[in-house]
Amino acid sequence: MVKPNMYYNELKDSYLFYNIAQKTRTYVENHPGVKLLRMGIGDVSLPLCDAVIKALHEAVDDQASKSSFHGYMPECGAPFLREAIVKYYAKRGISLSAEEIFVSSGASDELGDILDLFDRSNQVLVIEPAYPAYVDANVMAGRKIMYLVSGEENEFLPEPNEKTEADIIYICSPNNPTGAVFSRSQLQAWVNYANKRGSIILFDAAYEAFIEDEILPHSIFELDGAETCAIEICSFSKTAGFTGTRLGYTIIPKALKRNGMNMNEMWVRNRTTKTNGVSYIIQKGGAAVFSEEGQKQIHENIQIYKKNAKVLMQALDQLGIWYCGGKNAPYIWMKCPRGMKSWEFFDYLLQEIQVVGTPGEGFGACGEGYFRFSTFSSPEDTKEAAKRIVKLLS
Amino acid sequence: MVKPNMYYNELKDSYLFYNIAQKTRTYVENHPGVKLLRMGIGDVSLPLCDAVIKALHEAVDDQASKSSFHGYMPECGAPFLREAIVKYYAKRGISLSAEEIFVSSGASDELGDILDLFDRSNQVLVIEPAYPAYVDANVMAGRKIMYLVSGEENEFLPEPNEKTEADIIYICSPNNPTGAVFSRSQLQAWVNYANKRGSIILFDAAYEAFIEDEILPHSIFELDGAETCAIEICSFSKTAGFTGTRLGYTIIPKALKRNGMNMNEMWVRNRTTKTNGVSYIIQKGGAAVFSEEGQKQIHENIQIYKKNAKVLMQALDQLGIWYCGGKNAPYIWMKCPRGMKSWEFFDYLLQEIQVVGTPGEGFGACGEGYFRFSTFSSPEDTKEAAKRIVKLLS
Repeated sequence: MVKPNMYYNELKDSYLFYNIAQKTRTYVENHPGVKLLRMGIGDVSLPLCDAVIKALHEAVDDQASKSSFHGYMPECGAPFLREAIVKYYAKRGISLSAEEIFVSSGASDELGDILDLFDRSNQVLVIEPAYPAYVDANVMAGRKIMYLVSGEENEFLPEPNEKTEADIIYICSPNNPTGAVFSRSQLQAWVNYANKRGSIILFDAAYEAFIEDEILPHSIFELDGAETCAIEICSFSKTAGFTGTRLGYTIIPKALKRNGMNMNEMWVRNRTTKTNGVSYIIQKGGAAVFSEEGQKQIHENIQIYKKNAKVLMQALDQLGIWYCGGKNAPYIWMKCPRGMKSWEFFDYLLQEIQVVGTPGEGFGACGEGYFRFSTFSSPEDTKEAAKRIVKLLS
Repeated sequence: MVKPNMYYNELKDSYLFYNIAQKTRTYVENHPGVKLLRMGIGDVSLPLCDAVIKALHEAVDDQASKSSFHGYMPECGAPFLREAIVKYYAKRGISLSAEEIFVSSGASDELGDILDLFDRSNQVLVIEPAYPAYVDANVMAGRKIMYLVSGEENEFLPEPNEKTEADIIYICSPNNPTGAVFSRSQLQAWVNYANKRGSIILFDAAYEAFIEDEILPHSIFELDGAETCAIEICSFSKTAGFTGTRLGYTIIPKALKRNGMNMNEMWVRNRTTKTNGVSYIIQKGGAAVFSEEGQKQIHENIQIYKKNAKVLMQALDQLGIWYCGGKNAPYIWMKCPRGMKSWEFFDYLLQEIQVVGTPGEGFGACGEGYFRFSTFSSPEDTKEAAKRIVKLLS
């Protein structure tokens, strides 16, 4: 008799986005014709940039003709894309080899898959508030999870607790949901903690392209010693609008070893066993992101989202409401006004001004009393939402 | 200290395709200008059909404009593609709901990922000769593997051994590497075995489109009771030339339950946690495969590969060499002549007539003395290879 993976029974039902969808649907049904201003989900609204579209069309044409047709791709990524990523990192002074870069179908896929490198017995550390999948993917694998709670007192950027023994540490910076970004010295403290204990940091860099303060680290490999304790997981989703096009990459340094095993070599073995690579067409689109034209165009799009962030930040400043994020991240994390709870504030905004955000409590208990706005909506909707928020809360 | 997944140490080095690549490279270096006839790897040579190319271009255009842009896709698959697959199965009299179909990035990805549904303690049964990844993916997960050896005596289509207790059973039909196809009654015996014991069959249907004998089952769900014991893993790779474009789908019936857990619901939870769906562009290309035009065009391509198979089969018939496969599968599995071993025959063909195939020993010990030809090469190369084989072995 097959025994299913019984750890699935230990998953908590994830009601966050389901509940948001249910509540908004009910509202729309009861108020036909009313338009909602959706600042909840972290999905982009701008189309792919011209350089990417051009490359995608060219790649489709390649697949139409026998002489240019591409069959199986190299499992760890096409050389043209791995090389483009090497050059992107070199601009920041980070020296990588193409063999340290693994092309993936996206960060969410990779955050789940990468756990195959680790034994079930490892202790996982999740800094809350956090993206719920970090927790669920480890619950499915039967791992024990420790939580490090953050809050306003440390601006949602906690230091490592030297008394704890974490084996696998999730760090997302710029952070989802708080938008907070670790400084160089704060991140160095985590790297030192990991190297001292032999832990491994899974660094989620999905939002690095939104950093504008030059002093902040985009990659964990800007820090001393990260190559012996970190894996960086990156995404084209927010950087280049690939949420529905799907592409990402993961950096595993060749110097990353534990217990006599080389994690880079292990991942090569994993990918050559469990995948046949990522679509040629999509990888071609991804390579165009790193062209001169592509970089210019994606940054024009990012500027539009950053203007949305400014509009919302100005509204909160005007109201004197505490928040973090927005400047170096596409998320704004605000304190709910008048001591309201997260879901209470959600209902209030929906009912009174038809604005949809994300209740902070959905990212962990310490998110209670906070609220996340995404800046990926259209400029028109964002301006209108900001206007209504100011009017409602003044 | 992080403990790596130490089961990786138990993997045997996979030398098969590496050794083939090394030997052919050395030959080419020592014989500059000589053209090899490559009948080894199972990669397609024909480009994507027109209906797919058109759909891919249209989907790229959708991603270029704000009004038609697609962000995050549903994690379990786009409704338009799930519905197209429902209709494809309905033509064969198999009634599925869209929720029983999960779109994937390809069968090789899915064959690895799907194992997350099962506890480590399950006993895995692999019918040899077999695709090496079935074994490796389970070794990585720490599972014990039993082998069921097949051979000429049962035409490489073994019956279940009623004395064994297998929990997870891999069945690939039409088979890679042997090209053998289970008949309806043979497959029914496996379904009955699985239902009796509570086992689950992972049915690899990657080559179903190559079946031409109307009596042979394309899907395990054509058999009575399969909905309570089987998961079917399907691919666009060989059917529609998607080896480098990447797309597949998996069928998990809602009736598939073990130990109080519903495997369909578990997979929904897995996908919503660990993926953000498959590329909109590629799913649009995949849906075009099921259009009337798409079906016509892919079958024209399959006919070209089938003609290759006929050319090779005629050569072997002429030589009086035992083989199976070829008629309902894109692989031909031949007995090495003159009692040669697999690698000996490989070297002989390479050195004497510059033909590259795959030594059967690479698919398990019982493959020793056999040899696999792929029929995915060009018609010109296949004809020339057949001619040289007849001349060499006559």
